[in-house]
Amino acid sequence: MSAKIVCFGELLVRLGAPGRQLLLQTPQLEVHAGGAEANVAVSLARFGHRAQMVGVVADNPLGEAVTGELRRHGVDTAAVQRADGRMGLYFLTPGAIQRPSEVLYDRADSAFVRAGGGQHDWPALLQGADWLHVSGVTPALGAAAAEGTLKAMRAARAAGVKVSFDGNFRPKLWEAWHGDAPTILHAIMAEADTMFASHRDLEVVLKRPFAQATAQERFAAAAQAAFAAFPHLQRMTATVRVQRNVDHHALSANTALRDGTLHTTPSYEVAGIVDRIGTGDAFAAGVLHGLISGMSDADGLHFGLAAACLKHSVPGDFNLVGVDAVEAFLNQDSFDVKR
Amino acid sequence: MSAKIVCFGELLVRLGAPGRQLLLQTPQLEVHAGGAEANVAVSLARFGHRAQMVGVVADNPLGEAVTGELRRHGVDTAAVQRADGRMGLYFLTPGAIQRPSEVLYDRADSAFVRAGGGQHDWPALLQGADWLHVSGVTPALGAAAAEGTLKAMRAARAAGVKVSFDGNFRPKLWEAWHGDAPTILHAIMAEADTMFASHRDLEVVLKRPFAQATAQERFAAAAQAAFAAFPHLQRMTATVRVQRNVDHHALSANTALRDGTLHTTPSYEVAGIVDRIGTGDAFAAGVLHGLISGMSDADGLHFGLAAACLKHSVPGDFNLVGVDAVEAFLNQDSFDVKR
Amino acid sequence: MSAKIVCFGELLVRLGAPGRQLLLQTPQLEVHAGGAEANVAVSLARFGHRAQMVGVVADNPLGEAVTGELRRHGVDTAAVQRADGRMGLYFLTPGAIQRPSEVLYDRADSAFVRAGGGQHDWPALLQGADWLHVSGVTPALGAAAAEGTLKAMRAARAAGVKVSFDGNFRPKLWEAWHGDAPTILHAIMAEADTMFASHRDLEVVLKRPFAQATAQERFAAAAQAAFAAFPHLQRMTATVRVQRNVDHHALSANTALRDGTLHTTPSYEVAGIVDRIGTGDAFAAGVLHGLISGMSDADGLHFGLAAACLKHSVPGDFNLVGVDAVEAFLNQDSFDVKR
Amino acid sequence: MSAKIVCFGELLVRLGAPGRQLLLQTPQLEVHAGGAEANVAVSLARFGHRAQMVGVVADNPLGEAVTGELRRHGVDTAAVQRADGRMGLYFLTPGAIQRPSEVLYDRADSAFVRAGGGQHDWPALLQGADWLHVSGVTPALGAAAAEGTLKAMRAARAAGVKVSFDGNFRPKLWEAWHGDAPTILHAIMAEADTMFASHRDLEVVLKRPFAQATAQERFAAAAQAAFAAFPHLQRMTATVRVQRNVDHHALSANTALRDGTLHTTPSYEVAGIVDRIGTGDAFAAGVLHGLISGMSDADGLHFGLAAACLKHSVPGDFNLVGVDAVEAFLNQDSFDVKR
Amino acid sequence: MSAKIVCFGELLVRLGAPGRQLLLQTPQLEVHAGGAEANVAVSLARFGHRAQMVGVVADNPLGEAVTGELRRHGVDTAAVQRADGRMGLYFLTPGAIQRPSEVLYDRADSAFVRAGGGQHDWPALLQGADWLHVSGVTPALGAAAAEGTLKAMRAARAAGVKVSFDGNFRPKLWEAWHGDAPTILHAIMAEADTMFASHRDLEVVLKRPFAQATAQERFAAAAQAAFAAFPHLQRMTATVRVQRNVDHHALSANTALRDGTLHTTPSYEVAGIVDRIGTGDAFAAGVLHGLISGMSDADGLHFGLAAACLKHSVPGDFNLVGVDAVEAFLNQDSFDVKR
Amino acid sequence: MSAKIVCFGELLVRLGAPGRQLLLQTPQLEVHAGGAEANVAVSLARFGHRAQMVGVVADNPLGEAVTGELRRHGVDTAAVQRADGRMGLYFLTPGAIQRPSEVLYDRADSAFVRAGGGQHDWPALLQGADWLHVSGVTPALGAAAAEGTLKAMRAARAAGVKVSFDGNFRPKLWEAWHGDAPTILHAIMAEADTMFASHRDLEVVLKRPFAQATAQERFAAAAQAAFAAFPHLQRMTATVRVQRNVDHHALSANTALRDGTLHTTPSYEVAGIVDRIGTGDAFAAGVLHGLISGMSDADGLHFGLAAACLKHSVPGDFNLVGVDAVEAFLNQDSFDVKR
Repeated sequence: MSAKIVCFGELLVRLGAPGRQLLLQTPQLEVHAGGAEANVAVSLARFGHRAQMVGVVADNPLGEAVTGELRRHGVDTAAVQRADGRMGLYFLTPGAIQRPSEVLYDRADSAFVRAGGGQHDWPALLQGADWLHVSGVTPALGAAAAEGTLKAMRAARAAGVKVSFDGNFRPKLWEAWHGDAPTILHAIMAEADTMFASHRDLEVVLKRPFAQATAQERFAAAAQAAFAAFPHLQRMTATVRVQRNVDHHALSANTALRDGTLHTTPSYEVAGIVDRIGTGDAFAAGVLHGLISGMSDADGLHFGLAAACLKHSVPGDFNLVGVDAVEAFLNQDSFDVKR
Repeated sequence: MSAKIVCFGELLVRLGAPGRQLLLQTPQLEVHAGGAEANVAVSLARFGHRAQMVGVVADNPLGEAVTGELRRHGVDTAAVQRADGRMGLYFLTPGAIQRPSEVLYDRADSAFVRAGGGQHDWPALLQGADWLHVSGVTPALGAAAAEGTLKAMRAARAAGVKVSFDGNFRPKLWEAWHGDAPTILHAIMAEADTMFASHRDLEVVLKRPFAQATAQERFAAAAQAAFAAFPHLQRMTATVRVQRNVDHHALSANTALRDGTLHTTPSYEVAGIVDRIGTGDAFAAGVLHGLISGMSDADGLHFGLAAACLKHSVPGDFNLVGVDAVEAFLNQDSFDVKR
Repeated sequence: MSAKIVCFGELLVRLGAPGRQLLLQTPQLEVHAGGAEANVAVSLARFGHRAQMVGVVADNPLGEAVTGELRRHGVDTAAVQRADGRMGLYFLTPGAIQRPSEVLYDRADSAFVRAGGGQHDWPALLQGADWLHVSGVTPALGAAAAEGTLKAMRAARAAGVKVSFDGNFRPKLWEAWHGDAPTILHAIMAEADTMFASHRDLEVVLKRPFAQATAQERFAAAAQAAFAAFPHLQRMTATVRVQRNVDHHALSANTALRDGTLHTTPSYEVAGIVDRIGTGDAFAAGVLHGLISGMSDADGLHFGLAAACLKHSVPGDFNLVGVDAVEAFLNQDSFDVKR
Repeated sequence: MSAKIVCFGELLVRLGAPGRQLLLQTPQLEVHAGGAEANVAVSLARFGHRAQMVGVVADNPLGEAVTGELRRHGVDTAAVQRADGRMGLYFLTPGAIQRPSEVLYDRADSAFVRAGGGQHDWPALLQGADWLHVSGVTPALGAAAAEGTLKAMRAARAAGVKVSFDGNFRPKLWEAWHGDAPTILHAIMAEADTMFASHRDLEVVLKRPFAQATAQERFAAAAQAAFAAFPHLQRMTATVRVQRNVDHHALSANTALRDGTLHTTPSYEVAGIVDRIGTGDAFAAGVLHGLISGMSDADGLHFGLAAACLKHSVPGDFNLVGVDAVEAFLNQDSFDVKR
Repeated sequence: MSAKIVCFGELLVRLGAPGRQLLLQTPQLEVHAGGAEANVAVSLARFGHRAQMVGVVADNPLGEAVTGELRRHGVDTAAVQRADGRMGLYFLTPGAIQRPSEVLYDRADSAFVRAGGGQHDWPALLQGADWLHVSGVTPALGAAAAEGTLKAMRAARAAGVKVSFDGNFRPKLWEAWHGDAPTILHAIMAEADTMFASHRDLEVVLKRPFAQATAQERFAAAAQAAFAAFPHLQRMTATVRVQRNVDHHALSANTALRDGTLHTTPSYEVAGIVDRIGTGDAFAAGVLHGLISGMSDADGLHFGLAAACLKHSVPGDFNLVGVDAVEAFLNQDSFDVKR
Repeated sequence: MSAKIVCFGELLVRLGAPGRQLLLQTPQLEVHAGGAEANVAVSLARFGHRAQMVGVVADNPLGEAVTGELRRHGVDTAAVQRADGRMGLYFLTPGAIQRPSEVLYDRADSAFVRAGGGQHDWPALLQGADWLHVSGVTPALGAAAAEGTLKAMRAARAAGVKVSFDGNFRPKLWEAWHGDAPTILHAIMAEADTMFASHRDLEVVLKRPFAQATAQERFAAAAQAAFAAFPHLQRMTATVRVQRNVDHHALSANTALRDGTLHTTPSYEVAGIVDRIGTGDAFAAGVLHGLISGMSDADGLHFGLAAACLKHSVPGDFNLVGVDAVEAFLNQDSFDVKR
């Protein structure tokens, strides 16, 4: 069952050091397209859905390149506008062992940030859509982008389109323009049907701690508070990530429903990580696929976690695996070479 | 003690994605020469033996390149014929973590498959040889190749040359031409002195299950059945591979002799796998080296397993390490840099 | 003015040696998507038109990759079907100085060749189209592909869609299946409105020599004969290529019209060639752009030649430059760095 | 004879497509450090002088990398300050044949531009210096940078340090902030002892055309006007570049002295250009080396031109050749391999 | 608190196989600058100290390249002399899993070895220095180098400059010239204030075994013997490395003081090693940083071990991380991406 | 007609900067096998002859790699001995435009130089051989190598094996050990049947100038003198190379026979040179092929020159083209892509 999902957000150019080198240790950079919402769009397209990207890129070869990458992977880019200005960039120093990866953002004053998002004809774009997906990165970019995000979400709600929101809290981005994160995110969360968020995101927005003993209890308490605060919210979900070192994590996930149900998954050891960037977006896309495809919440959560685990094995920001690979993960009886 | 071993089979060109990328994620392919029997030939040459490859390659730069690679590593390629047609290719998507590697064969209708193998002057080629080595990949390629394999084995037996056979069961290849695998493989196994095969290979050929509780028991039962079915067979050997994930396996090995003796090795953890392709062939070459060199069956089995473990650390299909490296593995007192 | 152009033909995977190396001199291959008609489609998409590719690719990562490359560059691939089978490949040894480049085709029995093209719903595909573009490579691939080409052209003619045909005569492909090139190509040329062909193409089809003294006279005589033989034909055009060495050509072009008019361009020195593959397709796309955009035949011819010249500076099969770059070529007042 | 030369300007990170590819045609970028004045500093350091860079870089790994590159080549970077903000970047699409190279600047709002240059303790920095070198790129970056440039030049003049100025007129940079180029550059040229400038630079500043028949006459007339307008100016020099195509230029150079003397060089064919960026800076460094080393103006001009020609053979922005290589060029009796 | 540390030793060019390939498996080599004492110098420079390298390089592009690399990373190379002769090289085959890395030295008769080190004006070089650092590699290179090492150490002691010595015992180097390692090293150790050495180094020099039951007991006993033998010695320190396989070690460290105090650290698992070369030098630099910065011995030991652990994640011989990264390791609360 | 040619000389490892970079401008080296006589052996093997290499390599992975490369290209390496010591290396900075390529030799004290060549059992090695080929590089390496060369030549003459000698005069190598080049080379030339030498080689040996007006006259005069001095000499041949710049040469060639006949070829423009190293060896191999194959001297000279021209288009030291490619050059009717 294929659905149409509209994703709104900034496309980024990632410039990363090769292998495990430090940034510019040797004079080469590997380039990937990225952006939290674009990552979701690509994954959904690879899962067979009609994913449409909405946003603005610079009217130059960088903007053309990242738009082309989305198209390459099956995302509809007809609603990606071009404008004067610069592309948002980020430089990545891949980590290893006990040296964490580092992201150096160079995205201030991009064509996307200047435009904000209010300029799109949201009712037209959302026509025939099943879902709108946005994330907390966009409102963190500036007042206009925050406005644009809200405008898009409200247009979706008005049109009967489901809305998913991924917290993706980025303190440095908010600080850069002294944005009032709690207030803005509160307004945004109020429009979401499904939310990808941890107890930490809720701590920021609800301005209260969740200090329960276990990760699961903290999540459940935060979800309960979220359902109380946001009447439209039906579902909150998040991964739990235990980091043994930079290259080896253990992942599980929880989904809380408004009726108090809590689903949880087994924990998977993800050792020998190839690329950790975009794994949260892969989770979101997997969970959305479950919802769209009519899976149960438990199955969809498991599907999303499997997608997230697999993303750790794929270089770049995009989760390029298909539904078959995720299902093979869930039914895994062999890790051997497939011939 | 250097011996002459004749290896018969198809040479392949492997086209693999670099690093841990998906196939054609970026527009580059890394090329390796391969082929189950060629892998054995190269390893034996690196162990100091006179390994001779017999087969057919396309009369074009691809055929020349893989033949040249064998020569580079010391294999005698005088009996590799050139013919019109195409080279067998395979595309490799290297896996990672919980995403298995994938092999995409593009070897149908190759010059080798067209020729089959019956055209070689086997009595001449086997003159002065100590062993003939073939594998189950070749008869799986088509009727002519199955015929050629049998012809070579029977010529060897007639000439008093020992015959080793590696099961290497590839269902997809058999299915592609609706080959009668059990019948053909039964005839082939009947000609082998030493067989590299698991209980699963014997299940296919003997059309009966081996459902004992442990891997070792299944192997022992299958070996017993094999000795009953194949009066020439003196020795059956196989690795036991426990796959913790794509990058981390544990390996041990068993050898069963006609007299009922069962040898087994310790289990080695092979973590951070560089390249899993060709590890079974590395095992075969190691065991053959043991036999040729006059090692005891127990020592040869251990040598073969060590060779197989080491192959996991070498990129490409060939096990390029020498006898010294295998012996160092067996006597390992340090993993530190050798200066 | 944007138009819809349907391009029918096989998508190919090009596997080329890097730099000026011989094939597999080092174990790396650079991959490009290609195919004569796909090259035209990409160039037209880069020129701002709605280019739609029709064809069949293998249902595997290679097929996915080349389809994705077309999408990346803006070509509509909704009508590219997936089927079991293999992708057509070609290996490229790039030449240098006095050593010509060499193409090694490995495209026999591809999914495209098996399907042929008759299976497409041509009336539906051509709805709303302005042009259908095919080339002589497709009928050279086999009887089914020849049938499919004719079917497509006739459907276009029936639907009032203009038809362009690029000769692209490849003797080796015809010889491989003993196809009757003159008869088949005669039937095909009879359906073309615009033809990209040299006097040599017409010699093959009309089975008569054009031995005039100069290139221009041979072209004019061949065009005259073509107009006589093919009543639908309105326009024949071709480049004239003088090859000083592998890296340095001089290019000009001629267009003959049914009314006897002959347009010709200046000759351009193209020295330090980066990639000669696809330059004929770049010419075809440029001329088609001129026709679609309402340029005069003379201007369109000049535009096409400029596009062809520029293609020599772009790695790969596709002419990735836009209209601006071609116009800059035509108005060139500086070769200096544009800042 | 080694001298101390202070170079003031912005350090840039160049991100270029490999080979002759279009930008992001494949997902890799080659990185070089650059910047007009840094290029001069590096070349002078390679010629054996004490070159000191003054400027501001971002306090992040990019700033560290380009500063490190200067140090690597022998430039003193003790006066390169670090500050919050971003590094100036530029993306390079290398051209070929008739497709010009393209520079895409992404340097707005860099740490250097924010700081401007007025914050340096110029009297201290210039102590013991023989020359200050600045270029027209810096004042084009904004009002503060223009102020900083003038401040540096005036401090040099006050301290008896010779001042060289390279016009490097970049209209797009001036337009971006609506800077009054003629007025500002007039004030700057008034402080220069030696000026690298063409008649076009003077047309901008003096707001009058130089439309003489030949390049040399235009240069001579512009120089005459410059000496009239700028009483401190002693010497004006420029290359003459005839561009046969993107890869093949012919270079000569002229120097005009206040006393009316005009020196000129032979013309050199520079064919098969490897990297044209930074060749003007290489010329400036070569001429400065001549002046510092006590060469005659004619010899220094020839040395500068030779340095410029050689730079076309060196990848990147820096002219990494030493005095020996330039002298070998001037005495060239063989282009053969030096063993 | 920044200090001046003088490091004396040979600069080397490392030529390594890429990835996990065997040496020259493919025809490419990755180049790094190295040398035990240079590694210490670079790490100290990255920690903010004034590190000065003393030594001799070949007067050719290789010598220039490694000197430039040191400068790039902030080391003062004014005292690196150039001389006729060759550069010391070493070829590295990186290991994996159970296949150890292999170093192939090609450093005989280098310009450094010929010069030895006695030619430097040690009193002048050590003026204003806080520490002199040398290692056991240098005296192992030949009689002149051993003389030079002693001369430098004695000059330091005479000038009141602290002396650190890193054992780095390399039997093959000593054997190559039949050097009397115990006698020479005894004389050298007698000049050290701080010594990086294991019980094995002391076994060589003191010609007696340390066969205590545990690593810590052996170290303590060796230290006690060292303090007895070398009256100037104040401190002996060493890492303890448990090698689970080539890619996975566990590291801890001990420091023994003359007063009998023994400091020890926790053990850290270092899994997924990127580059093991230079990790001992990274430890030395970290401990020296602690001493220079006024840390307690316990804290300095921990800092040194953390630096050593982090080096395993950095390609090449140099530990390029800064103080911040080491402190983050010591306070590690997350291995997640830093944004 | 296939012949057996024995080539005696040193195998070298070439370490070259990629593209047109200066040596170690970026930290990568491309590796090729080389050596003047090995280059001849490889070319003859590619032409279908039984080429046998005689020499000594270091008993380490470098020696193994270059030996393997020769085997890969079909050279018999059974007589390549392994010995302790180092491999001869050379570093290559590829030139461009007016910047000449530079070779930095690092071959002193190699295993080959230590062994010299006298240790081979020359009568046995030459059994069944048609030709022995040596060059002036070998005697330039030291007294033992000069002795070995003479010994080999005299053994060949004794056995009725034809001897070819390529002058390859390398002054720096002779100077390094103060070898008496004229005397030694005189003795060597006295043993040659066919000599590849220019008038400059003869000037060195005969200690007299050849100052005729034209290149051809100088060659003819030198040949006349050579025939007078060396009674065994039947044939002297050389290329004439006019270097327009580093990337563009013009090549012709002359052969003088004892009977006074002088053959000459047309001149070919070789523009856009890919790799100039080994082109003289390619010429020698081509001429030898002509002699072996029974071509006339005129045809063989032309064949040799064509081979030399083609070598300029092949990266590395080896001329990897076959007889077909050379014949295509001689019959060249098109430089277009061969499909």
